[in-house]
Amino acid sequence: MKVFREIRELKEYLKIERIKAAKDRKFPKTGLVPTMGFLHEGHASLLQRARQDNEIVVLSIFVNPIQFGPNEDFDRYPRDEDKDLALAEREGVDAVFLPSVEEMYPHPTATKIKVEGLTERLCGASRPGHFDGVTTVVGKLLHIVQPTNAYFGQKDAQQAAVIAQMVQDLNFDVEIIPCPIIRESDGVALSSRNVYLSAEQREAAKVLSRSLQKLQSGVEAGESITAGEALKALTEAIQAEPQAVIDYVEIVHYPRLNPVEESTILKDAEEPVLVALAVKFGTTRLIDNVILMKKGEALHV
Amino acid sequence: MKVFREIRELKEYLKIERIKAAKDRKFPKTGLVPTMGFLHEGHASLLQRARQDNEIVVLSIFVNPIQFGPNEDFDRYPRDEDKDLALAEREGVDAVFLPSVEEMYPHPTATKIKVEGLTERLCGASRPGHFDGVTTVVGKLLHIVQPTNAYFGQKDAQQAAVIAQMVQDLNFDVEIIPCPIIRESDGVALSSRNVYLSAEQREAAKVLSRSLQKLQSGVEAGESITAGEALKALTEAIQAEPQAVIDYVEIVHYPRLNPVEESTILKDAEEPVLVALAVKFGTTRLIDNVILMKKGEALHV
Repeated sequence: MKVFREIRELKEYLKIERIKAAKDRKFPKTGLVPTMGFLHEGHASLLQRARQDNEIVVLSIFVNPIQFGPNEDFDRYPRDEDKDLALAEREGVDAVFLPSVEEMYPHPTATKIKVEGLTERLCGASRPGHFDGVTTVVGKLLHIVQPTNAYFGQKDAQQAAVIAQMVQDLNFDVEIIPCPIIRESDGVALSSRNVYLSAEQREAAKVLSRSLQKLQSGVEAGESITAGEALKALTEAIQAEPQAVIDYVEIVHYPRLNPVEESTILKDAEEPVLVALAVKFGTTRLIDNVILMKKGEALHV
Repeated sequence: MKVFREIRELKEYLKIERIKAAKDRKFPKTGLVPTMGFLHEGHASLLQRARQDNEIVVLSIFVNPIQFGPNEDFDRYPRDEDKDLALAEREGVDAVFLPSVEEMYPHPTATKIKVEGLTERLCGASRPGHFDGVTTVVGKLLHIVQPTNAYFGQKDAQQAAVIAQMVQDLNFDVEIIPCPIIRESDGVALSSRNVYLSAEQREAAKVLSRSLQKLQSGVEAGESITAGEALKALTEAIQAEPQAVIDYVEIVHYPRLNPVEESTILKDAEEPVLVALAVKFGTTRLIDNVILMKKGEALHV
């Protein structure tokens, strides 16, 4: 496994790998897994999928300052390079790209990629500018790595939808592959930010997955619950947990993210439905979601 | 010469050409010349340079609606496909990409690429949103064609600077090659929009190049004119032409586009200096410019 801290070196490596393969008359597929590091089994699942699909697997680790707001956790975002490299090695990654902030932004960027509409709801409403930072850095990474496939976890369901929209609108030559949420055995979605939680908050955080999964099982079992009823039930369940402070609970179509009408019976919705929430436990903001689909319906972003 | 109207077909063609070359263990360079058609010898000079530098030359012709303001000339912008294809054939173009608006924008784009700062002055001030449309469509074309080099005329000096900034900030894997302005024998810069001019306006339009070139020769001959004096002289010369209505006359550093102080003696400026103007003749808005450089200084964007 190679580790690159400079764009130039990574590009040179990829060029040589592609030339080698071309000499054998092959056109190797490259898979990119863009992350902010502090890797967990959710990231590992993306790397495994990338390993299955591609000849070359590139993991990028970069805590991207321009997607954090002024009062957010950029400085204290957890970092553990040694552990990350060990996990990457274990998953058979070919190249890890670990640039510094100066390498990615030698000057403050004058250029941003902005997706309108999709970025205004859910996390976009509480984190203004966040998605512009995400799409801009993902655009940069796609240009640097030029992958065939790029892998994104569905825990950030809105992020996956926003990036898919960007790729479609700007004709990026890449396939965006959304991958399922990975959870702890007690249901809590894996997140690098879980490390911020006290023992008591970690216990309280179970309310998110528990209430989302209760809703999902009900709908899948054929219950005729409306979007309005579901919102009320979720909100009440989370509010019953004294540690939890709701940022948002929303029910929207996926991947378009337009709101589902309150009167819509969820099991009869014509498109996949995203039930998404962001909840604070102390200073730690967690997100989680489920996507409700008809039997046999395939998820795409 | 091949003509493609669909993105999928063009990409398939480029893939096959690249595979062919790779089988011979070559890595063919591709040159892209993006245009809005109604081609003239200015465009021809870009194609000639692209032909020199690359194995594959792609010409795109697309009148991009999202770079026109609501009261601008999108609908009446001149088009002549047959003449354009004849010129392309003459210049040895390999592939012409001629997409419809529906092919480039199957839905209104939710995504834009925006360059801040550089786009706020000069043409950006009088054409709000114009450069967002330009950077977005150029981003799309770069993703579709994946060229090694892309060629832009220096008549749109600000456009070349904005695109170079975008390419640098977003790590696009392409070289931006600025090419000199081509002029009629009487000095008027070639422009597809010259076709709008009446005989009288065409005659009057000579004031632009005449006054710019007078300034340039003076500075090159060692005259100690300041930026403020130059602005005044240019403005007066153009105002003396009754057909001409000034949109702007500006003197800025190039390619950063920050204003040159009025007291700066132009021949002593530390960086290249762009003297740029936009002037209306009737309803037709023409732009022209000169770049003042020290002897031996090389222009880059």
